[in-house]
Amino acid sequence: MVFVTRKTHFNAAHRLVNSSKSDQWNQETFGKCNYANWHGHNYILEVTLAGIPDPETGYVIDLGQLKKIIEQYILEPCDHRNLNMDVPFLAGIIPTSENLVQAFYHQLKKPVESEASQESVLYSVKLFETERNSAVYCPYKAIKID
Amino acid sequence: MVFVTRKTHFNAAHRLVNSSKSDQWNQETFGKCNYANWHGHNYILEVTLAGIPDPETGYVIDLGQLKKIIEQYILEPCDHRNLNMDVPFLAGIIPTSENLVQAFYHQLKKPVESEASQESVLYSVKLFETERNSAVYCPYKAIKID
Amino acid sequence: MVFVTRKTHFNAAHRLVNSSKSDQWNQETFGKCNYANWHGHNYILEVTLAGIPDPETGYVIDLGQLKKIIEQYILEPCDHRNLNMDVPFLAGIIPTSENLVQAFYHQLKKPVESEASQESVLYSVKLFETERNSAVYCPYKAIKID
Amino acid sequence: MVFVTRKTHFNAAHRLVNSSKSDQWNQETFGKCNYANWHGHNYILEVTLAGIPDPETGYVIDLGQLKKIIEQYILEPCDHRNLNMDVPFLAGIIPTSENLVQAFYHQLKKPVESEASQESVLYSVKLFETERNSAVYCPYKAIKID
Amino acid sequence: MVFVTRKTHFNAAHRLVNSSKSDQWNQETFGKCNYANWHGHNYILEVTLAGIPDPETGYVIDLGQLKKIIEQYILEPCDHRNLNMDVPFLAGIIPTSENLVQAFYHQLKKPVESEASQESVLYSVKLFETERNSAVYCPYKAIKID
Amino acid sequence: MVFVTRKTHFNAAHRLVNSSKSDQWNQETFGKCNYANWHGHNYILEVTLAGIPDPETGYVIDLGQLKKIIEQYILEPCDHRNLNMDVPFLAGIIPTSENLVQAFYHQLKKPVESEASQESVLYSVKLFETERNSAVYCPYKAIKID
Repeated sequence: MVFVTRKTHFNAAHRLVNSSKSDQWNQETFGKCNYANWHGHNYILEVTLAGIPDPETGYVIDLGQLKKIIEQYILEPCDHRNLNMDVPFLAGIIPTSENLVQAFYHQLKKPVESEASQESVLYSVKLFETERNSAVYCPYKAIKID
Repeated sequence: MVFVTRKTHFNAAHRLVNSSKSDQWNQETFGKCNYANWHGHNYILEVTLAGIPDPETGYVIDLGQLKKIIEQYILEPCDHRNLNMDVPFLAGIIPTSENLVQAFYHQLKKPVESEASQESVLYSVKLFETERNSAVYCPYKAIKID
Repeated sequence: MVFVTRKTHFNAAHRLVNSSKSDQWNQETFGKCNYANWHGHNYILEVTLAGIPDPETGYVIDLGQLKKIIEQYILEPCDHRNLNMDVPFLAGIIPTSENLVQAFYHQLKKPVESEASQESVLYSVKLFETERNSAVYCPYKAIKID
Repeated sequence: MVFVTRKTHFNAAHRLVNSSKSDQWNQETFGKCNYANWHGHNYILEVTLAGIPDPETGYVIDLGQLKKIIEQYILEPCDHRNLNMDVPFLAGIIPTSENLVQAFYHQLKKPVESEASQESVLYSVKLFETERNSAVYCPYKAIKID
Repeated sequence: MVFVTRKTHFNAAHRLVNSSKSDQWNQETFGKCNYANWHGHNYILEVTLAGIPDPETGYVIDLGQLKKIIEQYILEPCDHRNLNMDVPFLAGIIPTSENLVQAFYHQLKKPVESEASQESVLYSVKLFETERNSAVYCPYKAIKID
Repeated sequence: MVFVTRKTHFNAAHRLVNSSKSDQWNQETFGKCNYANWHGHNYILEVTLAGIPDPETGYVIDLGQLKKIIEQYILEPCDHRNLNMDVPFLAGIIPTSENLVQAFYHQLKKPVESEASQESVLYSVKLFETERNSAVYCPYKAIKID
């Protein structure tokens, strides 16, 4: 099994807020991430496929194609935008890193897999909100050692 | 001459807009940095002093003290805030990196120099808006070679 | 399955020595890592949880809480300390990265999991001794492909 | 299960070309990676073992030994060389990152495992072609969650 | 004085050779950098301007414009190319980092300064050949302290 | 004027203590950097020369030679050592970064300049104690703008 990863980045504003809860609950739960006038991040996004390289090209996927897919499906709607207000596929989602990686994974799965070598899959999506805080969505599971 | 640098970071929202100009001028001049609903960055800030180390401590400045000064004068007003709306000392300033480094330098100069060893000066303030784009303010000048 | 990671760092002194062995064995086995007068590292620590985000907050764990737990259980006893001499939960352990990640995992498991969303687990602990050398402890196993 | 990783780097020239195909196919498939006069990269290589630390040393492997094995088996034949022309164990392989990680894994498996603690295995080989593009070979598999 | 920097990167092949010297002199002088079949690097390029921000925009230069100038004048001729053979403005130059930064500076000076705010100058060009080796060309001089 | 920089690293233990002062003064002044049982760092060292490239080689200095000089004069005495106890040329010096960069500069000046191209000088020595804290010694001075 060979894994390939493409790293990209975008800048966006957001705030954490659950609109079905009170202001007080939101402030206590989300702290400075709940400040009213937005804040933002230089997000770093890493998209990983797993598969068998195509014998004619040696590629799991042409990383230039993967770059274009990420630009079209993630960067164009999200870069220099407000993740709470401007992005249709994030509507109604609290934009924590945990929720963003799941939304990005489902947004990318079909276009990525249609460009990749046979039987390759979108393996995981990782997002760094800051250099220190990151989240990964990966629908594959390792087994607990007894 | 010994230079010491402390690196810190904060997250904030901003947009570029000159309110004395038309919407059209702003869109043409600032492009996606002018989008209405804000975007943001993980800013990295580097503060540099120049001076002679104190012979008793070997310090130009206690970097733990410098950290606290930066937290009080820059991070507390700016972190997880909106640089156009929330920060009194940035009122009326277009928040380009070029303008921010100048404002931060003047904000830090007095408290930093009062903590540093004798005759030390605040030498420069550097700000990375992204990993690729940065600005430095430094009121010292090198000379052109003829 | 969503994974979240918090990255922190601390500075400490150590040396590698197995006190049940001769000086000669220790020098031959550990080389310059066995030097008598200690050496040290800027350790980078990455703590990863796996779980399902809480639907009300979108969090697997509040990373601010995770930061505090790591500070209390790892950084307070280890930062600017001597890992061979000063840290009770490392007593009797040769402080290789391999042994440190296991000790840190067991130190963190209970407090981390009691703060995380339901059914989340402490998935792994990674430690960089230098930028080039790192170790991970993870009690979950992938399966060998035949 | 403890994982240890050693990171190294080398510089090499390459181009992507499938010699059984036409010039036109190669240009369309590989784009600027197919340019005739070569280009090159600062490759970063990460070699990871999985195992149980030896109780006497606390090591899965002596990372100084691992460094020497990587130097002998990968860096000596590849560093400052042309990966299409100069490296016997890459003969006939299109030097994509996907193909390189597999070749490096098979080149390292025997010498690495003979130096490691009992039952340790070479777990994976990761190669960054650029900071943004990377590939991993790992013959272990996680299970798809239904 | 405000300095702004734009960081970019490109990949290229090169070898060090002085064609007016013997093969033996070249091998003894340049070692593995002289290997016949080329090697290559992921070059990182940092272009710095010094000037006074334009009061209407807050910019020394629009970094989007600077990005385009670097792409046109440096990346288009150099990326995925052979620096000894493919780049007209490097003809006859031994492609050490020292020589490359001078050539890039002179290549960029006119187009960069015609886009920048009044009285701004191209201050320096820095090139990382590897993460560890870098060169800067800067035609401005600091004064030796007696 | 062309500047070339070589980046290296070493690991060492130290503590900050002025032996002519009381324990209380040391604890109040140096805080956790004064802990009795040492702590340590992965130091990163950057050595910069300024000069005119040799026309025959295109080098200010052969960076392979510079690497060897740094290894002999700094790394061999300091790596995996205790900077307070083990390094003859640091005897009697409080090992702050400010003091270390000055000592390293004077240690390197003669051997570096005897290997460099004519009229080249050792321009500066930079030391990162952590990723966030660094110091530079440079005996050249820029001029204050009035």
